[in-house]
Amino acid sequence: MRVILPEIKELLSSKQRRTIRKVLSYFEPADIAEAWSEFNIDEKLKLFTILNTKVAADIFEFLQEDQMVELLDNLPTKRKVAILNEMSPDDRTDLFAILPTEEVEKLIPLLEPDEQKRARELLAYKGNTAGGLMTTDYITVSENVNVASVMKELRVKAKDIDFIQNIYVVDKVNRLQGIIPLKDLLTTSPQRKVEKVMENYFPNVGLDMDQEDVARVFEKYDIPSLPVLDKLGRIKGVITVDDVIDVIKEETSEDIYHFGATEVTDQYLSASPLNIAQKRVIWLIILALAGFISGSVLEHYSYLLSSIVTLSFFIPILMNTSGSAGTQAATVVVRGLATGEIRLRDIWRVVRKEFFIGILMGIIAGAITALRALVLQSDAALGLTVAIAMIIAIVIATSIGGMLPIIFKKLGVDPALMSGPLIATILDTTTLLIYFNITILLLYRFR
Amino acid sequence: MRVILPEIKELLSSKQRRTIRKVLSYFEPADIAEAWSEFNIDEKLKLFTILNTKVAADIFEFLQEDQMVELLDNLPTKRKVAILNEMSPDDRTDLFAILPTEEVEKLIPLLEPDEQKRARELLAYKGNTAGGLMTTDYITVSENVNVASVMKELRVKAKDIDFIQNIYVVDKVNRLQGIIPLKDLLTTSPQRKVEKVMENYFPNVGLDMDQEDVARVFEKYDIPSLPVLDKLGRIKGVITVDDVIDVIKEETSEDIYHFGATEVTDQYLSASPLNIAQKRVIWLIILALAGFISGSVLEHYSYLLSSIVTLSFFIPILMNTSGSAGTQAATVVVRGLATGEIRLRDIWRVVRKEFFIGILMGIIAGAITALRALVLQSDAALGLTVAIAMIIAIVIATSIGGMLPIIFKKLGVDPALMSGPLIATILDTTTLLIYFNITILLLYRFR
Repeated sequence: MRVILPEIKELLSSKQRRTIRKVLSYFEPADIAEAWSEFNIDEKLKLFTILNTKVAADIFEFLQEDQMVELLDNLPTKRKVAILNEMSPDDRTDLFAILPTEEVEKLIPLLEPDEQKRARELLAYKGNTAGGLMTTDYITVSENVNVASVMKELRVKAKDIDFIQNIYVVDKVNRLQGIIPLKDLLTTSPQRKVEKVMENYFPNVGLDMDQEDVARVFEKYDIPSLPVLDKLGRIKGVITVDDVIDVIKEETSEDIYHFGATEVTDQYLSASPLNIAQKRVIWLIILALAGFISGSVLEHYSYLLSSIVTLSFFIPILMNTSGSAGTQAATVVVRGLATGEIRLRDIWRVVRKEFFIGILMGIIAGAITALRALVLQSDAALGLTVAIAMIIAIVIATSIGGMLPIIFKKLGVDPALMSGPLIATILDTTTLLIYFNITILLLYRFR
Repeated sequence: MRVILPEIKELLSSKQRRTIRKVLSYFEPADIAEAWSEFNIDEKLKLFTILNTKVAADIFEFLQEDQMVELLDNLPTKRKVAILNEMSPDDRTDLFAILPTEEVEKLIPLLEPDEQKRARELLAYKGNTAGGLMTTDYITVSENVNVASVMKELRVKAKDIDFIQNIYVVDKVNRLQGIIPLKDLLTTSPQRKVEKVMENYFPNVGLDMDQEDVARVFEKYDIPSLPVLDKLGRIKGVITVDDVIDVIKEETSEDIYHFGATEVTDQYLSASPLNIAQKRVIWLIILALAGFISGSVLEHYSYLLSSIVTLSFFIPILMNTSGSAGTQAATVVVRGLATGEIRLRDIWRVVRKEFFIGILMGIIAGAITALRALVLQSDAALGLTVAIAMIIAIVIATSIGGMLPIIFKKLGVDPALMSGPLIATILDTTTLLIYFNITILLLYRFR
């Protein structure tokens, strides 16, 4: 796309409408949308006047939010409304969700009556539920017609719908009775009744289902689309798999960012340092304040450090290794909670498992650390102290690291907020307490 | 499904074949597969003898790898081959990829001649490329036939294919010329020539494209399926969006686990602690050894710690806060590299941005720490030292944290291996060095 941009700009300035339409027809809407920022606002408006409504709406759906808003602010009302009428209802709802309410209330009455109804209905659902994900672009047929009349219906409606995988069979009050995959229609005799052809059992979800759970239904059943029903079993919309990809990406991204102790940053390269710092600094302040506690522990036991200076050499490695062991455990558990493998009631199974994992890893890390005390400090008692502290610190680290995300989830807080840095900071305090108390029990009384 | 398990087990022991078939037809294959571990091996084998091949193959495709292998090891050869013939070629290839080569070489010659050819072809592609993801279940038609004959062809072939979205139009040597969405076939006059109906421009990918890039093509164009072409433009297979969901989940999971300094653990609850410890301990050893370096830094400057004991109280908070700031930067950059927003050539933009972010956050964290020194230690000089050390440590932390993942990627190493714990461990050393040197410059000369 980018290679022919100069030519397109040239054509735009010389107003060669037909050639522009022809040239752009060689490109995917997504590719044109990707190059959108290369045009100035005049060129954008000219393009949207020249292209036919369907093509313009296709490109529009792929634009970034700020680019959509820019066009809405500048296009003549008639053109704007034509494009909004043409958009797929779910994408239009996403757009309305980012506009000010007053503007949406001005726009909706301008839409075609059918689209007005759809728009209001979809806007009523929360964005992160099945109702917020679904489109109202789907085809229903009555259960007592035959395949030939379904085909006839299909011929009329198919043009307006991007993605048809199934035909939905409903009773008189719109309750979903069955589904017919499009390809089955083609291989069935036209005289057969719909109710003989349809599949009676099929996955479906309720309007209120959380989008993460919707994504899991898609993954589990490997299906391209999913009907959404209200409490009475009436079909209200259809979710297609491409919308679910966005959900999966969104949810895992959120987990990753939280787990790295930062808020989601959509546009990194174009955001200002101040803007990004704001998203991170709250976490950093929390972590710094939490770090005061370990400072106070050090202060409390400073008499030990003054009398045995070598003790302090092992503080970083103890804090690091236990912090890392805790982060590892938390990573696996946060992930398990996200995929649904680990449930709240598994908390003791997780803690028990992490306890044993901690013992195994603690023995190895303890042995390595003891070796350092023996070789560099030639101090067997110190080596023993450090090794025992390491084993206990790691056992506590893995157990707490595995437990905290589950407790967070139990409290209704995103478990990914139990981030690596937060776990490490919490564990610093426990590790120092363990270290100094083992020192008092073992090393200090023999010095 | 689970609620009627006792009844199904009962039916199995009394060999009521027809009733079993009937009862199981009410459930999705994915639901039956989910409850699979509740059956013992005898029941599993009985079920696979009773069910018809198509249903058995559908369930089989949803089983976990070890469950598939168990069935292959125990089913009579005839039944085993029937199911392998019925499976979709891409799922079968995934199964063959986990079996020993000798076993695959024994199984392939037993397949139907057509399936043998497909199986060998698909096995030749690497699992993580477009060739490894694609299925050979798709329908091609010649460019000079009319829509009616396409429909005829479709009626014959549609039954064997799970997911038909497009018909692929090819020339005499199988080069892809265009695609026809299934729904367009329904709305077009049967007499029209295929070449008049087809879309000439459409996204497509090469056989060797990495699966992560394939997933990005799906995301960008919002399409349900994607043709895979060889270097001469001949169609070799089709990738469907449901396979791409698995890729996206797999790749982000891998990133998350690496970022938490652990290897991917598929089955957490059922794996033994020893098994899980093995996946984590290598990282812990690396981190422990890296921790020796900061221990040596402490040792080198221990004369400072013995003369100013209060210095040590601030070591945990400095290490923590800079470690966390570095983790935040690395999280955002690892994610940006994964989504493609950040490219290798952006390294200096990233470092410059992180430098300024570090200054902003450092001033805040430094002020908090200085306040602690003033309030609890009533030591203004210590406060100044700690604050300056904090600012410099955080600036270095964010800059290094942002830079290292890009350098890893440049070296061809997974940037997510630049994990939070590893960044924190590396930064411990730089933070201690900064702290002690600022102390020597400022605080130590006045005591």
